[in-house]
Amino acid sequence: MPVIHVYMWAGRTQEVKEKIVKGITDVFVNLGVPAEAVIVILHDVEKSNWGSAGKLASKTS
Amino acid sequence: MPVIHVYMWAGRTQEVKEKIVKGITDVFVNLGVPAEAVIVILHDVEKSNWGSAGKLASKTS
Amino acid sequence: MPVIHVYMWAGRTQEVKEKIVKGITDVFVNLGVPAEAVIVILHDVEKSNWGSAGKLASKTS
Amino acid sequence: MPVIHVYMWAGRTQEVKEKIVKGITDVFVNLGVPAEAVIVILHDVEKSNWGSAGKLASKTS
Amino acid sequence: MPVIHVYMWAGRTQEVKEKIVKGITDVFVNLGVPAEAVIVILHDVEKSNWGSAGKLASKTS
Amino acid sequence: MPVIHVYMWAGRTQEVKEKIVKGITDVFVNLGVPAEAVIVILHDVEKSNWGSAGKLASKTS
Repeated sequence: MPVIHVYMWAGRTQEVKEKIVKGITDVFVNLGVPAEAVIVILHDVEKSNWGSAGKLASKTS
Repeated sequence: MPVIHVYMWAGRTQEVKEKIVKGITDVFVNLGVPAEAVIVILHDVEKSNWGSAGKLASKTS
Repeated sequence: MPVIHVYMWAGRTQEVKEKIVKGITDVFVNLGVPAEAVIVILHDVEKSNWGSAGKLASKTS
Repeated sequence: MPVIHVYMWAGRTQEVKEKIVKGITDVFVNLGVPAEAVIVILHDVEKSNWGSAGKLASKTS
Repeated sequence: MPVIHVYMWAGRTQEVKEKIVKGITDVFVNLGVPAEAVIVILHDVEKSNWGSAGKLASKTS
Repeated sequence: MPVIHVYMWAGRTQEVKEKIVKGITDVFVNLGVPAEAVIVILHDVEKSNWGSAGKLASKTS
């Protein structure tokens, strides 16, 4: 506890992913949750699979 | 608001994905939600990762 | 196939929910998917559980 | 972009939820993502719906 | 590892939920995964939030 | 009903995936749910996308 699912555009480096996992975990650690209890699952989503305002991000971003 | 996650078999074309994103967004636009507020995330699932009736779809479909 | 999860603010009526389920299902039916194969799961999210731009929607909406 | 789903035990106060939303959003802001692009959806899960090591947390925590 | 999310109609007893958590955990234990590594999150979904074949289950089940 | 999402490390064989789908389905069949009503979606997550205790599993496992 807790489990966090992050859905974001694909393409981030391992270094950035480490910062995301560390940063989100620290949010809970600062609230008294043990780091060992925090699971963060990253989901790389291609822009061709991400729709916003009725359009695929691959067409607009 | 809202966020929609679609889990479907992999293999659809970009043109079809655009129709899915546009179509789902329009459902909410027709209810008065601004298109800009609708996020649709498509998840391509391989048939070898989709189980139905206790069997993988890659074996039955 | 497919399975759709909709996360939206709580408070919509049954009539509106029926329109959402029917509308999303029709998007896939129009692409040749049998209606019986479409599952739509609605998730009512309280504004006090919805964060945007770093703030809870219960404070800003 | 991005969308973050947090699944955690029910019972946290609004003040704590604000810290979670603000903290997770800041992780992405620090990576150059505009705060307005970050959506955090909190899911309160009762301990009677949370299983760990084969047991419900309501029986063990 | 792994994390399992179960979406099912609301109304099951604690005894049944315990069987679900134990049963799913055992599937992975039988594959060599330690029980402590298995998290099962149950989501009770009202029939009025469950759409199938374009209709709410509250109208058809 | 029900829909089950399994998030686990990538790399399992088809044979193992079949056991997971069959095993989880049987848990519900044993509770009286028809096998045809059970959908299991497997999500292969790379260790480089799985965070635990603030670190990526690709660095620790």
